[in-house]
Amino acid sequence: MKRKIRMGMVGGGPGAFIGEVHRIAARMGGQIELVAGVFGTDPEKSRTFAEELFLCPERGYADYKSMLAGELQLPAEERIDFVCVCTPNHFHFPVSKAFLEAGFHVLCEKPVAMSSAEALLLQELIERSGLLFCLMHNYSGYPMIQQARQAVADGVLGKLRKVNVEYSLGWLAAPNAGKQAVWRVDPKQAGISGCMADIGTHAQHLIEYVTGMSILEVSADLATFVEGRALDDDGSVMLRFADNARGVIFASEVATGEENNFILKIYGDKAALEWRQQSPEELIIRSNDAPMQILRRGWPGTGEAAAKLSRLPAGHPEGFIEAFANIYDAFVEAMRSGKPGDYPGIEEGVAEMRFLEAIVANAKGSEKWTRV
Amino acid sequence: MKRKIRMGMVGGGPGAFIGEVHRIAARMGGQIELVAGVFGTDPEKSRTFAEELFLCPERGYADYKSMLAGELQLPAEERIDFVCVCTPNHFHFPVSKAFLEAGFHVLCEKPVAMSSAEALLLQELIERSGLLFCLMHNYSGYPMIQQARQAVADGVLGKLRKVNVEYSLGWLAAPNAGKQAVWRVDPKQAGISGCMADIGTHAQHLIEYVTGMSILEVSADLATFVEGRALDDDGSVMLRFADNARGVIFASEVATGEENNFILKIYGDKAALEWRQQSPEELIIRSNDAPMQILRRGWPGTGEAAAKLSRLPAGHPEGFIEAFANIYDAFVEAMRSGKPGDYPGIEEGVAEMRFLEAIVANAKGSEKWTRV
Amino acid sequence: MKRKIRMGMVGGGPGAFIGEVHRIAARMGGQIELVAGVFGTDPEKSRTFAEELFLCPERGYADYKSMLAGELQLPAEERIDFVCVCTPNHFHFPVSKAFLEAGFHVLCEKPVAMSSAEALLLQELIERSGLLFCLMHNYSGYPMIQQARQAVADGVLGKLRKVNVEYSLGWLAAPNAGKQAVWRVDPKQAGISGCMADIGTHAQHLIEYVTGMSILEVSADLATFVEGRALDDDGSVMLRFADNARGVIFASEVATGEENNFILKIYGDKAALEWRQQSPEELIIRSNDAPMQILRRGWPGTGEAAAKLSRLPAGHPEGFIEAFANIYDAFVEAMRSGKPGDYPGIEEGVAEMRFLEAIVANAKGSEKWTRV
Amino acid sequence: MKRKIRMGMVGGGPGAFIGEVHRIAARMGGQIELVAGVFGTDPEKSRTFAEELFLCPERGYADYKSMLAGELQLPAEERIDFVCVCTPNHFHFPVSKAFLEAGFHVLCEKPVAMSSAEALLLQELIERSGLLFCLMHNYSGYPMIQQARQAVADGVLGKLRKVNVEYSLGWLAAPNAGKQAVWRVDPKQAGISGCMADIGTHAQHLIEYVTGMSILEVSADLATFVEGRALDDDGSVMLRFADNARGVIFASEVATGEENNFILKIYGDKAALEWRQQSPEELIIRSNDAPMQILRRGWPGTGEAAAKLSRLPAGHPEGFIEAFANIYDAFVEAMRSGKPGDYPGIEEGVAEMRFLEAIVANAKGSEKWTRV
Repeated sequence: MKRKIRMGMVGGGPGAFIGEVHRIAARMGGQIELVAGVFGTDPEKSRTFAEELFLCPERGYADYKSMLAGELQLPAEERIDFVCVCTPNHFHFPVSKAFLEAGFHVLCEKPVAMSSAEALLLQELIERSGLLFCLMHNYSGYPMIQQARQAVADGVLGKLRKVNVEYSLGWLAAPNAGKQAVWRVDPKQAGISGCMADIGTHAQHLIEYVTGMSILEVSADLATFVEGRALDDDGSVMLRFADNARGVIFASEVATGEENNFILKIYGDKAALEWRQQSPEELIIRSNDAPMQILRRGWPGTGEAAAKLSRLPAGHPEGFIEAFANIYDAFVEAMRSGKPGDYPGIEEGVAEMRFLEAIVANAKGSEKWTRV
Repeated sequence: MKRKIRMGMVGGGPGAFIGEVHRIAARMGGQIELVAGVFGTDPEKSRTFAEELFLCPERGYADYKSMLAGELQLPAEERIDFVCVCTPNHFHFPVSKAFLEAGFHVLCEKPVAMSSAEALLLQELIERSGLLFCLMHNYSGYPMIQQARQAVADGVLGKLRKVNVEYSLGWLAAPNAGKQAVWRVDPKQAGISGCMADIGTHAQHLIEYVTGMSILEVSADLATFVEGRALDDDGSVMLRFADNARGVIFASEVATGEENNFILKIYGDKAALEWRQQSPEELIIRSNDAPMQILRRGWPGTGEAAAKLSRLPAGHPEGFIEAFANIYDAFVEAMRSGKPGDYPGIEEGVAEMRFLEAIVANAKGSEKWTRV
Repeated sequence: MKRKIRMGMVGGGPGAFIGEVHRIAARMGGQIELVAGVFGTDPEKSRTFAEELFLCPERGYADYKSMLAGELQLPAEERIDFVCVCTPNHFHFPVSKAFLEAGFHVLCEKPVAMSSAEALLLQELIERSGLLFCLMHNYSGYPMIQQARQAVADGVLGKLRKVNVEYSLGWLAAPNAGKQAVWRVDPKQAGISGCMADIGTHAQHLIEYVTGMSILEVSADLATFVEGRALDDDGSVMLRFADNARGVIFASEVATGEENNFILKIYGDKAALEWRQQSPEELIIRSNDAPMQILRRGWPGTGEAAAKLSRLPAGHPEGFIEAFANIYDAFVEAMRSGKPGDYPGIEEGVAEMRFLEAIVANAKGSEKWTRV
Repeated sequence: MKRKIRMGMVGGGPGAFIGEVHRIAARMGGQIELVAGVFGTDPEKSRTFAEELFLCPERGYADYKSMLAGELQLPAEERIDFVCVCTPNHFHFPVSKAFLEAGFHVLCEKPVAMSSAEALLLQELIERSGLLFCLMHNYSGYPMIQQARQAVADGVLGKLRKVNVEYSLGWLAAPNAGKQAVWRVDPKQAGISGCMADIGTHAQHLIEYVTGMSILEVSADLATFVEGRALDDDGSVMLRFADNARGVIFASEVATGEENNFILKIYGDKAALEWRQQSPEELIIRSNDAPMQILRRGWPGTGEAAAKLSRLPAGHPEGFIEAFANIYDAFVEAMRSGKPGDYPGIEEGVAEMRFLEAIVANAKGSEKWTRV
C-alpha cells in the first residue's frame, strides 16, 4: 500500500507566517504527513505545538540537532523522508547541510545561505550525495508563471529586449514592523542584505526562471529609509543580459501601502507579457499587431504547463497557497520517483547569492557596472 | 490527545470537480481525516479510488447504504464523525436523511433537496435529533463576504434599497458541455430547475445572507437557449423585499465566455458595496460623500469578521478553496463543541427550495409577482 | 470659400451641464460656429451670456419664438443653419416642431417628446419637410460602441441570446440633488417617467442600436425611493426580443456612490462583448474557445467603424466629449451633403417613447408582459 | 467687446498628430481663434491646408520667417497674439527665439531646445522681454495630476522616499514606424537623445512637477534595440534627490504592445500615490493604516486644484485632449491678464535639457552617478 511522504520541519513555530504556509501547502496534495519538527526555540513550546498539530509530542524537538538525532534513532519506516527548513536565513545553510549529510532530502526557504561560498558547499554536497534539494521560490509555482515561461520558450515574445520588475511592500515603512520583521533587518540573521535578500531575490529568480536568461551585470542603488536599520530596506537595480537585453528591478519594503505587489513585465521584439502576483490568474499578452489578450488559468489559450499546476476550473480563484503547494507536489513526485523534477534547486540558490553579492558590492562602489 | 475529525464522503469519485474541492478544503485546516467514502457508482472503482486516497480499500464502499452499514459496524473510535454529501441533487435528500437517522452529522451540497417538502422533512429531523447540519454555500465563506455582511449589519450602507446580482457562466453555451453538465440539466437528477438551481440559489443565498433581508416576491423569466434541454439554462428575476427594497438577479449558464462571474452589488441610502467572486479579496465601498474605498482582505479597514477567516497576509491571494475550507473549519468547530456555528444550515436549505419553487411557478404563469 | 455651419441653441444657459457639453462638442470639429441662442429664461441673462460666448448680444434671445422670428429676419447668409434643443424634456417637442416648420434642421436632446403621439407628429413633419433631424443619443458616438455594433453585425457573437445592461448613478440618492435634478423628477417638465426617461432610454437605445434587435415585450418594476418624488428614480426591466432573445435593464439614479456607470453586456452563442462607459476605450470580447480579448480604440483588431470616430492614437484617452462631438460631426456632414447620415434620428425617438409608455403601463398593472 | 485670442502655428501640417491635437485643444475653451500658420514645408500645401481650416489662404505661410514678416505687416488688431511651435525638435529654439524677438508670446512643444545652452538663451530672452512662454508638458494639465501635486504639497504622503515612473510605448519596436517616427530618431532633428528626449522628459517633468523635488543625480542605461538607429529607443535611469529620496525611470519606445503607458508612483513615509495616464481620471492613494482610496475626478475627496481643471461631472470620462486644453486655458488667462500663470515654462525647459545632457553623459561613461 502506498504511503504518505513524511515531513519534518525546522522553523515554523506558533505565529510564524511562512511556517504555517508550508504546512498548509504540504497538506493540500494529500500526499504528505507532518510527523516531526522544531517549532521555535523553546523546547516546551515546540513540544506543545507538535501536539496541537496532532504529532507525537516527543517529535516536537528542542533544536535541529536533537531532531536529527531523534529521527535517526527511529526505524526507517517511521523516520521523516525530508526536512523543510523555514527558519531565519542564517540557519538555512547549517540545517540543510546537517540533514543532507545525514541522508535526508531537503526543502529549504530562500535565500539558500549567507554567501555564495556556502551555497557552493551545499551544491557540492547535494551532487555528491544524490539527495534531492528544493529551494522554495514559490512564485514559480503559479500556473500563469509557467504560462509566461512557456510563452517565452515558444518564441511568442520573439527576441527578448527588456524586463521591468517591480516588487513593492509597505510593511517595513515604519520602524516597528512586528516580530516577523526583526530578523529580516538584522545582518546576523538575514545576511548581507535586507530587502534585496528578502524580495529582490524573488525578482531575480523569476526573471531568470521565466526568461531563461542570466543576469550578467548589475548597477544598483540600495537605500535604508528607516533610521537605525543596518541593512537596505529598498533598492533599484539596472540589469544587463547577453545579446543587448536589459532590465530594471524596483524593490522596496518601505513602499507604503503596498501589500505584496510583485509585477513582471517582459518585452520582446514580437510581443510582451505582464503578470501581477496580486491577480495571479491572469497573464496579459500585448503586441503591436493584435488586440491585448488576457490569458487566464483554466481557459482556452492557456497551455499545458499551466494546466498541470491547476486544480480548479477557470473563474474559481486559486492563489498563493496553491502555487506554494505546486512546488511541494513537484518535490513529492521527485521523492517518489527518485529523480529531480521541475522545481527550483541549488543552482538557483547559487545564482541568488551571486546576485546579492554583486549588487551589494556595486551599491557600495563608484563603478557603474558589476559582473554577477 | 486531541484527535482529528473523521469524514466520510458520498460522491466525489474520480474526475468529479466538486468532490475534489471538498477533499482539499477538508484537508486545509489539518483537523479532518478522510476515512471512508462512496466514490462513484462502480464498487470496484470506489475501492480503488479509496486506496489512491490512502484509505483502507474496504472503506471505499459500493453505495451509501452499504457505507452506512459498514461504518455502523466499526467501533465508535474508528467510525466516521460526519458525512459529506456531494452527489447530484436527487441524492442530497435521501443520503442526508439516512445518515442523520443513523446519528451522523451531515455536510451537504446545495440545493439541499428536490422540493421544499423534502427540505422541511430534513429540518424536522435535524431539530429532533440535535445533530449538526451544514449546507455548503461556499461563497459565504469568503472573508470579504463576511466584511460585506458586517458592513450592512453595522449600518455602513444605511437603509438598503436595491440589490443587483449577476451570476454568469458560459460553460453550458453549447449542447455538449461534458460529463459534469449532464446531470445538471436532467430533471430527474437536478430537479425542477437547471441554471437557477445550480447558480441562482447561490445568488439568492448570498443576497439574503449579506443583507439579512428575505426575498418576499419574485417575477421571473426563465429561458432555455440550447435546444433539447428540459430545464432552464438561463434566467432573470426581479425581487421584492420588505420596506420597498428591490433587486434583480441575472443568472446564466450560457453566458458565452464567462468563467464564474458572480457579482454582488448592494445599494443603501448612505453607501453601496460591490464584490466580485473572481477578485474575491476586494470589497468596493462607494458613497456620494467620499472617495471610493477598496477594502482588501488582511488590510486596515477590514474588520474582525473577515480577519477570522483569513490565513495569509494581505497581498498573498487567497481564493475559492480557502472560502470553502472556512465553511469546513466552522463545521469542525461546531462538531468539537457540539454547538451549531456560523455556517449555512437547513433554514437556508428550506429558503432556497421555496425560492426555486416560486420562480419556476412565476415563470410559467402570467401573473406579475409570486410570493416566495 | 467653405464656410462654417451656423448653430443656434435653445437651452444651455449659465450653469447648465448639458448645454456646455453641446457647445464644446460643437466646437471640437472646427466646422461649427455658434451664432445665436436662448440661454435661459431671463432675457437679460440670455443676452449677457451670448456676449460671454463672443456672440452679438442681440442674438442672445429671450425665448424660442423671438429667436425664430429674429433669425428669419436675418439674411440667409447670416441666419442659423440648425438649432440645438437642449432644454428640459417638455420643450423638446414644441421647439423642434417650430424650427422644423420654419425650415431649420434640428438637433434635439433625448427623450424626443412627452409621448409617442408627439414623436409621431415630429416624424411626419420631418418626412414631409425633408429637413434633417438628429436625436442626441451621445453614447452611440463612442468609437468602441461602433466596434460593438460592427462585431454584432459581422456575426462575431453568433446568434444573440441575452443582453444585460446596467445604468446606475447615485446623484439622486438624497432628496436635494441640486438644480439639474429638479426638472428631471417633475412630471410637468420630465413627462411620464423620471429615471427611465433620463437614463433608461439610453439603455434601451444602446441595446437596440448595437444589437439591431427591437425590444418586443417588457416586464418592469419601477420604484421611487426618495419620499415625495412624483416619478420613478429607479427601475428594473426584463426584456424580450424576437427569436427567444432576452434581456435585463438595471437602471437607477439612487445607486449611491455610482458616477455614470453604464455597462453593456451582450451574449451570443459564439461570443460575448462587454463595454463600460467609464472605461470607454475598451471593448472586451469573450468566448468559450479563446482567451479574453480587450479591443482598444486605435489599436490593431479594432475596425473601420471605430477608426472613423477616433481622433487620437491609442493610449491617449478620448472620452465623453469626443463621443458627443462625433454625433455633431455626422450631423454636420449630413447638413453639408443634404443627406441623412449615421446618427440617431426620429425613428429612435419614436422607439424610445413607445418603450417608456410600455414600461410605465406594465409597472402599474398586474400583467407579466406588455408589448412595446 | 471681448475678442478671441489669435493663434498662429508653426508645424502641424496635414497628418501631423500633435499639430491636430494643438488645434482641437485650442478650440475647446472657445477663447482662441486660429488665424495663421506654417502647415508643413510645401508652400502650396500650407496654403491649401489653411483654407481647409477656414483661414485666409494667404495666412498659410511657406516658412516661419515669411510668417513672421507677414504677420508683422498686418494691423495689430488682426495680427496673431501668440505662436504655437509644434515642429520637430530642432526648430523649437530658432522659431521660439524669432517670435519672441518680434514681440509675440510663444507656446512651444517639449523639449524646448537641442541643448541647455539654447534653453538658457531663451530664458534670458523671455526674462528680458517680459513676454509669456508656455512649454507644452501636457500631462501636467490632467486634473488628477493636480490632485497628486496637491496631495504631496498638503503632506498627505509625508516625507517622500521613492518615485517609480514607467513610460512605455511600443510604436518604435519595429524599424519602420511611419512618418511620425522618422525625425524622432534622427539626431539632426531630435537632438542628443531619442526616447529620453521624447518621453523621458515627460517622466522627469512630471516627477519634479508633482513632487516639487529636483533630480540631483542620475545613473542611466540607454539602449538602442532597433539596428541602424542613431539614438536611444529605450532607457532606464536611477535617480537621487535631496534628503535621501530615490527614484527610477523606466522609459521605452520599443515596449512592444504598449500604447502610451505612463505610470507615476510616489511613496512617502505616510502614504503613496499612483496615477496611470491610460486611466487618467483616477488617483490611487495607499497607506499602511487605511483602505486603498481611489480618488476620482469630480467626486468628493478630490480637491480644488483638480476641480478647476474639470469640465464634466464625474463618470463622464475626460481625457488627453482636455488635459492639453487645460494648458491652453491657463496660457490664455495669462495672455489676457498679462501675468504668467500655472503652466510649465522656460525653467522647466532648462531643467529638461540639463536632465537629458546628464543622462546621455552618464550612459556613455563608467562613473556611477552624474550630477544634473
